[in-house]
Amino acid sequence: MNEFQLIEQLTRNLPTNDSVVTGTGDDCAVLDLGLPDRFLLFKTDAVVEGIHFLTTAEPERIGYKALARCLSDIAAMAGTPTHALITIGLPKNFDADFVKRIYSGLGEVAQKYNVAIVGGETTTNPERIFISIALLGTVRKGKCPTRSGAKAGDAIFVTGNLGGSLSGRHLEFEPRLVEAEWLAGNFEIHSMIDLSDGLAGDLRHILQASKVGAELLAAAIPISRAAKLQSRAESSSKPPLLAALTDGEDFELLFTVRSGDAVALLDGWKKEFPKVKLSCIGKIVKTPGLKLRTKEGVRDLGAKGYTHFDKELKKT
Amino acid sequence: MNEFQLIEQLTRNLPTNDSVVTGTGDDCAVLDLGLPDRFLLFKTDAVVEGIHFLTTAEPERIGYKALARCLSDIAAMAGTPTHALITIGLPKNFDADFVKRIYSGLGEVAQKYNVAIVGGETTTNPERIFISIALLGTVRKGKCPTRSGAKAGDAIFVTGNLGGSLSGRHLEFEPRLVEAEWLAGNFEIHSMIDLSDGLAGDLRHILQASKVGAELLAAAIPISRAAKLQSRAESSSKPPLLAALTDGEDFELLFTVRSGDAVALLDGWKKEFPKVKLSCIGKIVKTPGLKLRTKEGVRDLGAKGYTHFDKELKKT
Repeated sequence: MNEFQLIEQLTRNLPTNDSVVTGTGDDCAVLDLGLPDRFLLFKTDAVVEGIHFLTTAEPERIGYKALARCLSDIAAMAGTPTHALITIGLPKNFDADFVKRIYSGLGEVAQKYNVAIVGGETTTNPERIFISIALLGTVRKGKCPTRSGAKAGDAIFVTGNLGGSLSGRHLEFEPRLVEAEWLAGNFEIHSMIDLSDGLAGDLRHILQASKVGAELLAAAIPISRAAKLQSRAESSSKPPLLAALTDGEDFELLFTVRSGDAVALLDGWKKEFPKVKLSCIGKIVKTPGLKLRTKEGVRDLGAKGYTHFDKELKKT
Repeated sequence: MNEFQLIEQLTRNLPTNDSVVTGTGDDCAVLDLGLPDRFLLFKTDAVVEGIHFLTTAEPERIGYKALARCLSDIAAMAGTPTHALITIGLPKNFDADFVKRIYSGLGEVAQKYNVAIVGGETTTNPERIFISIALLGTVRKGKCPTRSGAKAGDAIFVTGNLGGSLSGRHLEFEPRLVEAEWLAGNFEIHSMIDLSDGLAGDLRHILQASKVGAELLAAAIPISRAAKLQSRAESSSKPPLLAALTDGEDFELLFTVRSGDAVALLDGWKKEFPKVKLSCIGKIVKTPGLKLRTKEGVRDLGAKGYTHFDKELKKT
């Protein structure tokens, strides 16, 4: 059983109540606590030594990543982060200086985005460091995009350049909070998600939640320099386009708007964020499934998984 | 460096903001988000396999404990729990049925206290199960006791019977939410905490935060049947009084009120909660430090730790 199947089973019959606007299945839970014009956002995210970071990384960067990942989820809902709690599991003979430097990285990103760290706990996890962040934020009612609002005909946009994040960017990416707030404030964002599982995987989350399909234009997908370099350096690496489609931890925004808004959005974006790339990479279609248009034609990105796709891409 | 020293160092310079009523150092963070008459409570708590539970325990009980511990912290602030997120770290070859049964225990206690489980995540923790709960609640403004309000002359109360929790009760205790709400609604509770580190340790948290001392009456401390049985069964066990003072995981309420309220409180409690023991166990005094009055006189419970104290108790 994989993670997604397990989660699907575990979350099927969880207790809920009237204040829950959006529960499981989106980037954050959205709650109505009775604030006049804002919803509360509630999110947890964990990073584990050996899985999400190595202790050869600078500890400040580990702390930075732990909180910035969560901030990226608040960005995906166009929200403003407010308060965090830090849970850290430590081996018995932990290096106190290393832990303090993790906290210093956490503090740095918290300060930058005006997030108050209001507590948490340390506990024992004998074999490895385990950091779990709980984060609160707020979002204006009516301005909170979810995964489920994509409509046939929508243009699909993505920020930044994709792929190869594990060669360094995953420890120093900037969560797209400012950009997301601007987007939701100036356009009707039909659906949005942040990229953690990879473009194809995360787009599929939108498609499933919105009950639509998508067609991506291979030539329009922004590929990072890291993905290109990796592919050149090692023949066993993924082709760059595949890396951009499937590598995780990009922490960029993927969103859809009605196609009529696309040009105005690109124009406005260039003025507002001249240094951050924004690419229109395809469109939402009625028929479920994820397709990729290349110069050879349209191929299915769904049923047979990426191993198969990988071979095909190498052939072309 | 022990856990408390590390936390003290880590939390010294964390970023904060105007909405933080109480940050680190209490049972929950207390936040003012602009709700007209209520504060938000925010708490995380983790349980780790081999540390807080064994996989020989029933998995439903493990889930129950994970959430009930957090609910006990909301009780300590006289709050009402509302929403939870569940983070669970799993070994690679996890037993899906075991995990589902943990969730079923979580769901049971959530349902009982009307807590909506609004998401969370599963991640990998290769050697052992790691469960971290993030919990939200609310509390009426002006009715939220903290650790720092104890005053010289206060009577000290504790609910239930103490000690020996690890022989079973730690997996099935009832968080004192109803009792705490009744207390805060009917009396001016000067300070309150839930017992997780043991009576002496948790009382010391109140004393330090309130800058006062306390004198406990040995004969008044309610000792659990489990602590007495353990002591009889094994000569190497703690004497029962020492177990009641120092065993962790009781999850009872420890609180102080002005001494003039003590009789009315005991009377009202008996009518409201006839099945739950409430004991007046001592008083708050001006001079810092924790003392225990026995028939042999007053002894210090502070400086020399419990090993020393243990020997003395066995002598008496």
